[in-house]
Amino acid sequence: MNGAESMLETLINGGVEVCFSNPGTSEMHMVAAIGKSDKMRSILSLFEGVCSGAADGYARMAGKPALTLLHLGPGLSNASANLHNAKKARSPVINLIGDHATYHKKYDAPLNSDVIGLSGPVSHWVRNVASAESLPLDAAEAVQAAMVQPGQIATLIIPADCAWDESVAPVAALPRQGNALAEDAAIDQAAALLGNGRKTVLMLSHGALTEAGLELVDQVAQATGAKLICDTFTPKLARGEGRCEVERLGYFAEQALVQLEDAEQMIMVATKAPVGFFAYPGKPSEFYPAGCMLHTLAAVDQDPLDALTRLVQKLGAADLSPRRIKLQKPDLASGTLSLESMARAVGHYLPTDAIIVDESATSGAYMPAMTRAAEPHDWLSLTGGSIGYGLPVSIGAAVACPDRKVLCLHGDGGAMYTIQALWTMARENLDVCVVIFANRKYQILQVELARVGAQSMNKRTLDMLDLSNPDLDFVKLAEGMGVAASQATTAEAFNDQIKAAMQHKGPCLIEAVFD
Amino acid sequence: MNGAESMLETLINGGVEVCFSNPGTSEMHMVAAIGKSDKMRSILSLFEGVCSGAADGYARMAGKPALTLLHLGPGLSNASANLHNAKKARSPVINLIGDHATYHKKYDAPLNSDVIGLSGPVSHWVRNVASAESLPLDAAEAVQAAMVQPGQIATLIIPADCAWDESVAPVAALPRQGNALAEDAAIDQAAALLGNGRKTVLMLSHGALTEAGLELVDQVAQATGAKLICDTFTPKLARGEGRCEVERLGYFAEQALVQLEDAEQMIMVATKAPVGFFAYPGKPSEFYPAGCMLHTLAAVDQDPLDALTRLVQKLGAADLSPRRIKLQKPDLASGTLSLESMARAVGHYLPTDAIIVDESATSGAYMPAMTRAAEPHDWLSLTGGSIGYGLPVSIGAAVACPDRKVLCLHGDGGAMYTIQALWTMARENLDVCVVIFANRKYQILQVELARVGAQSMNKRTLDMLDLSNPDLDFVKLAEGMGVAASQATTAEAFNDQIKAAMQHKGPCLIEAVFD
Repeated sequence: MNGAESMLETLINGGVEVCFSNPGTSEMHMVAAIGKSDKMRSILSLFEGVCSGAADGYARMAGKPALTLLHLGPGLSNASANLHNAKKARSPVINLIGDHATYHKKYDAPLNSDVIGLSGPVSHWVRNVASAESLPLDAAEAVQAAMVQPGQIATLIIPADCAWDESVAPVAALPRQGNALAEDAAIDQAAALLGNGRKTVLMLSHGALTEAGLELVDQVAQATGAKLICDTFTPKLARGEGRCEVERLGYFAEQALVQLEDAEQMIMVATKAPVGFFAYPGKPSEFYPAGCMLHTLAAVDQDPLDALTRLVQKLGAADLSPRRIKLQKPDLASGTLSLESMARAVGHYLPTDAIIVDESATSGAYMPAMTRAAEPHDWLSLTGGSIGYGLPVSIGAAVACPDRKVLCLHGDGGAMYTIQALWTMARENLDVCVVIFANRKYQILQVELARVGAQSMNKRTLDMLDLSNPDLDFVKLAEGMGVAASQATTAEAFNDQIKAAMQHKGPCLIEAVFD
Repeated sequence: MNGAESMLETLINGGVEVCFSNPGTSEMHMVAAIGKSDKMRSILSLFEGVCSGAADGYARMAGKPALTLLHLGPGLSNASANLHNAKKARSPVINLIGDHATYHKKYDAPLNSDVIGLSGPVSHWVRNVASAESLPLDAAEAVQAAMVQPGQIATLIIPADCAWDESVAPVAALPRQGNALAEDAAIDQAAALLGNGRKTVLMLSHGALTEAGLELVDQVAQATGAKLICDTFTPKLARGEGRCEVERLGYFAEQALVQLEDAEQMIMVATKAPVGFFAYPGKPSEFYPAGCMLHTLAAVDQDPLDALTRLVQKLGAADLSPRRIKLQKPDLASGTLSLESMARAVGHYLPTDAIIVDESATSGAYMPAMTRAAEPHDWLSLTGGSIGYGLPVSIGAAVACPDRKVLCLHGDGGAMYTIQALWTMARENLDVCVVIFANRKYQILQVELARVGAQSMNKRTLDMLDLSNPDLDFVKLAEGMGVAASQATTAEAFNDQIKAAMQHKGPCLIEAVFD
């Protein structure tokens, strides 16, 4: 049994079932090992950023890692933007990166690069494999590292000879590390703060935003009057009918500062104190008022459900009945296609247990309100801010949850970063509906240009933020990759197309053209 | 004058004229500065890998750097695969990477990452700008670093406040560093080796492959009987009518070992001793026979024309008349569309001074032979082996040489990595003809799978290297991005479409479908 084969069995022993692949010559023994196994599903992508984004989406929904299979340093580089997002989401991901054979590295052949150096910034854990014999244990430790809660990016760099040389037997799954728990003092202090009569905000992310987590924070809010606010961009947020409600922090400083202006104290659960997505001249980086008392109940790598359960017990709030959202779908609009009319259609037709993958940027302005009381769903956000996560993450979510509809809401500019993802959706017949908001510009950047005070709104400048000339035709792009597509330019057409897409199983794309 | 404005004027002072842009919020003051200037042409791309590849192509043809404008660490990551290629080509490139404001970095906002760490592996020179005041001199030094011969990747990381804060006056162009010259001893030893009667190979790359360099090495060959071989993948090779001929080293070890089996000594000019692109089990990494004497006449960072001129003089070969290729265009084929018929059409219709950007992989097998005695042209290769360089490099070559036809020969799999480049070709109305060889698989990988002895050719394995199911439709993809496109399935159709494309000015795509 060679290194690749023993590694693969080890990964399977660790519960890994899916590999998002874009291999090259230095990965051929891994390709062969996967090809010979019937326990690892390989899903091919045409670009590595699709692999890494898909692994992120899979991890967010399955709660366990998928593999990416990447070709040396450049393959890793192409995957890195979405690994950045996955790292910020704390999604468990295992990267398998083929490298030159150990003895070939010194020749600095054309594809040689500093793979270890490239791995560090996008990984929590990096292992440069030394031999075929060590590879199985390295793989088992990679699984263990990926599963450190809430999840980590584990990168295994595998020289080609470590894959093809004779190896040792596969390794059984290593024990999972227990979840890190919040200190008693952190619980006690949170309870004390919540009882001192000051205006308190609970800032939430990660595991605090599961259905169970939301019920616990709702009990805290009922018992103490604390305000519940979640981060703008969270890995997964349970929403819609039957879920408890939290307010989402606004993206722009102007919004966030108003939401938080009264806060005298802030308790963080699985997140950090809120700061600006970017800095702006003359505006504060910190979104909390000067003098606001900050306290962390559970850090990102501590178990939020455990901490919240203990807090609820300490507050005597465990018997309070969570306040749940009642189903109330928005009415449909007619006439001009607008951000509001599209959000109404989504909220109206969204099926039960849908997964919304949101990279709508400015075009999604009405989506949260119009889906607030829709059918229960999960909402996935762009955690790391690196554009082009939406289509790939939709792939991974659909692979993890084949019985749930995935609705990907995407700006046109952002969609072009990883547009190759459409082909994989077609190839795997994934149940993903992609909505492209075709306003034909980087609208967020035209907004930001003014907000940063750059003071140049002339044509030359705006051309750098404009996607017309020529207009992109997303129907042709989708059809060119085997995905059925349609265009909507009126509210009625959009309503009809969303309705059909929510009823039909399989990939489709709707290009919504509006001003 | 703010930092961005003074930096921009400094870069213009240094002779920089073009910026391949994909900006975000942290680059808005640079966008505004460019928008206010009429001396910097900004060319927008939909993905950062297009920017970096375009800068590589521009540098190869213009001999000076263009800018890339990239958004924090993820923007750099997306650009990195083609920066890897540019680094191996030793193309001068200047990356402008916006980062969070200096005082905002510590908050680790979602887009924060280790930009310095990500820069190192794809750069020769990295500067993390400390203040708006230092930025102009930093920019001048970046130009100087990029122009170190034969060229370097210079990366300037610019925190947003360094762009928007008040700065000092722009800096004049710094003096260029003189070219490093080969030692006299290296010339003397080369001359001695060439006179000792042993079988000698001159291995060539970079500046040795210009028209002037080829004339010099041809004089050496005439005077000494040395064999002339160039690297498989070179930044730019002058070919066709009127040029002196060199043999190209084969990609596969089986080919290269035969070409070099007689070599008793090898003299390197602007390259290193030849090694395998990859390692293969049981095959040597080194392509030269055991005991072959290796000597470097000029290292990659030394001036090859100077070294060759001195060598020719020492050999008394300066008066020998270079042997030039005579024009002999191949005849056209008819009937079945094949690799040979397509190469015949290219060789037949190639216009004078065309630029061929080659990422044809296995599909280009007949191209070198059929263009050998075609009209004079430059041939650009995939220097770093990172797939997806062809379309972006074509953009840069067309921007640098608006009066020359660019012919991009591309495999279908590789083209999908940076397919977004088509939109920029349309937007800028660049004179690029793209030929997509649609064999609907990663043919090179199916070949390599067998060559590495991976011993699994079952359907599950081959599916990982296959691009059918669904077939890509490159005509729709091109039209979706505003590029006129056609499909050819016979030799006659391909001939007609190539003929029309070579006569028509502006972007077009031909999808050649064959088995």
